[in-house]
Amino acid sequence: MTVEWARGGPDLLVALDRGAGPLGVQIQDQLRAAIRDRRLSLGERLPSTRRLAALLGVSRGTVVDVYEQLLAEGYVESAVGSGTRVAAMPAGGPVRHAPDVVAAAPPRPAEVDFEYGIPDLGSVPLTAWSWAVAEATRTLPTAELGDEDPAGSRHLREVVTAYHRRVRSGCAVAEEAVVVSGFRQGLAFALATLAQHGIRRIALEDPGPREHDVIARRAGLDAVPVPVDDHGLDVGRLRETGARAVLLTPAHQCPTGVALGPSRRRDLVAWADEVDGVILEDDYDAEFRYDRQPVGSLQGLDPAHVIALGSVSKTLAPAIRLGWVLAPPRFVAGIVEEKRLSCRGAPGLDQEALALLMESGRFDRHLRRVREIYRARRDVLAAAAELAFGPDRLQGLAAGCHALLRLPEGTSERAVVATAATMGVRVNGLGHYRFVAADAEAEPGPRPPALVLGFGNVTEQQISRGIRTLAKAVRHREIS
Amino acid sequence: MTVEWARGGPDLLVALDRGAGPLGVQIQDQLRAAIRDRRLSLGERLPSTRRLAALLGVSRGTVVDVYEQLLAEGYVESAVGSGTRVAAMPAGGPVRHAPDVVAAAPPRPAEVDFEYGIPDLGSVPLTAWSWAVAEATRTLPTAELGDEDPAGSRHLREVVTAYHRRVRSGCAVAEEAVVVSGFRQGLAFALATLAQHGIRRIALEDPGPREHDVIARRAGLDAVPVPVDDHGLDVGRLRETGARAVLLTPAHQCPTGVALGPSRRRDLVAWADEVDGVILEDDYDAEFRYDRQPVGSLQGLDPAHVIALGSVSKTLAPAIRLGWVLAPPRFVAGIVEEKRLSCRGAPGLDQEALALLMESGRFDRHLRRVREIYRARRDVLAAAAELAFGPDRLQGLAAGCHALLRLPEGTSERAVVATAATMGVRVNGLGHYRFVAADAEAEPGPRPPALVLGFGNVTEQQISRGIRTLAKAVRHREIS
Repeated sequence: MTVEWARGGPDLLVALDRGAGPLGVQIQDQLRAAIRDRRLSLGERLPSTRRLAALLGVSRGTVVDVYEQLLAEGYVESAVGSGTRVAAMPAGGPVRHAPDVVAAAPPRPAEVDFEYGIPDLGSVPLTAWSWAVAEATRTLPTAELGDEDPAGSRHLREVVTAYHRRVRSGCAVAEEAVVVSGFRQGLAFALATLAQHGIRRIALEDPGPREHDVIARRAGLDAVPVPVDDHGLDVGRLRETGARAVLLTPAHQCPTGVALGPSRRRDLVAWADEVDGVILEDDYDAEFRYDRQPVGSLQGLDPAHVIALGSVSKTLAPAIRLGWVLAPPRFVAGIVEEKRLSCRGAPGLDQEALALLMESGRFDRHLRRVREIYRARRDVLAAAAELAFGPDRLQGLAAGCHALLRLPEGTSERAVVATAATMGVRVNGLGHYRFVAADAEAEPGPRPPALVLGFGNVTEQQISRGIRTLAKAVRHREIS
Repeated sequence: MTVEWARGGPDLLVALDRGAGPLGVQIQDQLRAAIRDRRLSLGERLPSTRRLAALLGVSRGTVVDVYEQLLAEGYVESAVGSGTRVAAMPAGGPVRHAPDVVAAAPPRPAEVDFEYGIPDLGSVPLTAWSWAVAEATRTLPTAELGDEDPAGSRHLREVVTAYHRRVRSGCAVAEEAVVVSGFRQGLAFALATLAQHGIRRIALEDPGPREHDVIARRAGLDAVPVPVDDHGLDVGRLRETGARAVLLTPAHQCPTGVALGPSRRRDLVAWADEVDGVILEDDYDAEFRYDRQPVGSLQGLDPAHVIALGSVSKTLAPAIRLGWVLAPPRFVAGIVEEKRLSCRGAPGLDQEALALLMESGRFDRHLRRVREIYRARRDVLAAAAELAFGPDRLQGLAAGCHALLRLPEGTSERAVVATAATMGVRVNGLGHYRFVAADAEAEPGPRPPALVLGFGNVTEQQISRGIRTLAKAVRHREIS
């Protein structure tokens, strides 16, 4: 049923649908929309409740309620003797409009995506997770459904530190752990805490994970690059920077894949001791080591100076969004306070679910299962790369889910990446991970061209096809 | 089996338990611990692999692997002709020690806890949540198990904005929504974005929710108080502050319980238009209105100037940790970038679960159910308060899960709160919610004494008992 009323023309429509919910709500919604859209304009008088009720065939009480609601919400005003009028609405033309910011349509997915850092999403243990959440809803004490202990679930902190001691040779206890929603959040909290402790400069690996310089600057720290060579971070160069903090990926460097060498580890610990420094250990994929037992966490070697950051983004899935910070006691309160003021905490039910998943052995079983999947993909990658590019072109295959493919000298990474993209293969060059220093002076020299190949979320068939395509792309660039 | 070896005495113990997992791992762990604890000191030579293998009754290969692992991790060094020696460890005495920061034992829970802002934790729809997570694990596309769209799950943004339009008379669309991990995180992102847009000062309700001044200052904003009276925030006083942003709780003021009056709403919108200002709407418990339909969100009235912040912390449980920011298009990209750099996002599976919970009607059913529980508690509270304190002492009972109990003039809030605590009742005075201005000049005058009574998470029996106790505490303070 459509009713129009007019002062000079049909300027308002109220269309009631007797099957679509309460009539009062329909009238309210349509009047609000008409006022927002300026179909009813400032000062315009609405029909009397009696008249609108008659026009719409509803009870007068319904219309009275509608007007009272709109009055309470500020859409209309009412004054003795002048009835109900449309209230002043903010200027600026029709208010309801298409947003200025529309997310760009995601690019068509590549046929083969060597993007770094994505685990095998097809292997996420969803049934186990669903089991763990159900178990958590059954067993979590009611009081823990409220705002959590800002440090995070005590249960999860105990389970995670026990895991870190067992699997990563760490030595942190629950009181030194803070649960966070993944590596990045933990890093932000840790850096803000270091800034509070008077640390002004942090050294970052070059090449290294992206955007850590931006995150450091947001926390108020000056970020400086330190080169990475075949033994990992160059500790001698670290000393020269004057930084009192360093963030690094010692078990499997991102993106070069090298492990921090034994003497470098000792040197790093000595540096921290000398300068009263802090080592932030990004322990992102150490669970996956293929040739031997993973090298233990630096945290176990030097618990007084190391803040270890871990998450389940690589071991389970980014969509679980849980991680932890294991910090020397002097930093724990600061990290907890950063967390409390930024976001109160992480989901309590998920924390309990993760604790149960780890305790039940399901987490370890999952790791064993995916390690074999990754090992098989790594073997296919190694064979395909040798066939297509010759021997010894891959680096960093001992652990994790990515490797570095060294391209022939003189090849343009950028050109190969662009050509590969047109051939359906997505990959990043090593240059993508270079530190872009704020001052050009600090910009380090060029490195041999290389591609960073993430093989966590590509099938064996895709790997073989992708490597052949990359070889074509390289030849294409050599010819052209 | 316990083996000791000594240079001058029994200084190292390696105790193997043949039933407790791989022997190599046990030896490693114990050597690491001994090195950390300085039971083995710098430069000390470990027994040869052959000797230790014989001592422990394990194969020599096992000990070789152990030494190699410790070498790779930096615990020991090895040089031709000098065997394997303990590497330099950081100075500073035994490294493994009890943490300096030990979380204080939580205070013994009160028998009756009128703490503000906690929903009925016994009514959290855990079975429905467990169902929703299981459903999400079955239906979420595999690709969405990776890093999420930084704005949050598209599905949830659509469901939440539809809910906000339907239940809160809002008018935001999915492109204007950003999923966050609760109100506080959304506020931090919104404030940081306002600072980027050149807004320097934000006005806060006085009295109002706690710590918002701290959060504002962390985002780089100057926070100034604006008094709240019986019609809510005083917009005239807001104009005088020169602030271009204001954060308020219009539907049910925290902690006074008043609703922002109709003319104040219109005035506020006019203010925002005049100063190109931003209204941050903390829409925290508007779903629970007992006497009438809830007053619609300010966002629906003035979408160009209002950032609406909501969460499920009051409607479901704090432990779910999901919320949303509905913002004018010009602020969306900034909020998304804050989120991406701070923490990447919220858990994807939980977001899908919440979307499914809301779509399935289970969320609405839950709200109807708890609304009746709260209504009954509110009625008990009203009756108990009238009996104990006389008529018209309670304010703000029309909505939400808390009310203000006005105490007799001259009563000391602080003293009543302290006395009640000794009698097993936890409650906060209105003074707890006063704005503590950075400069004493701006400190507003005293207000009549009152208590803030949260009744979301107390039973009807506890309410009756608690109010009787509070009356005793007041009498006690009057006498003493």
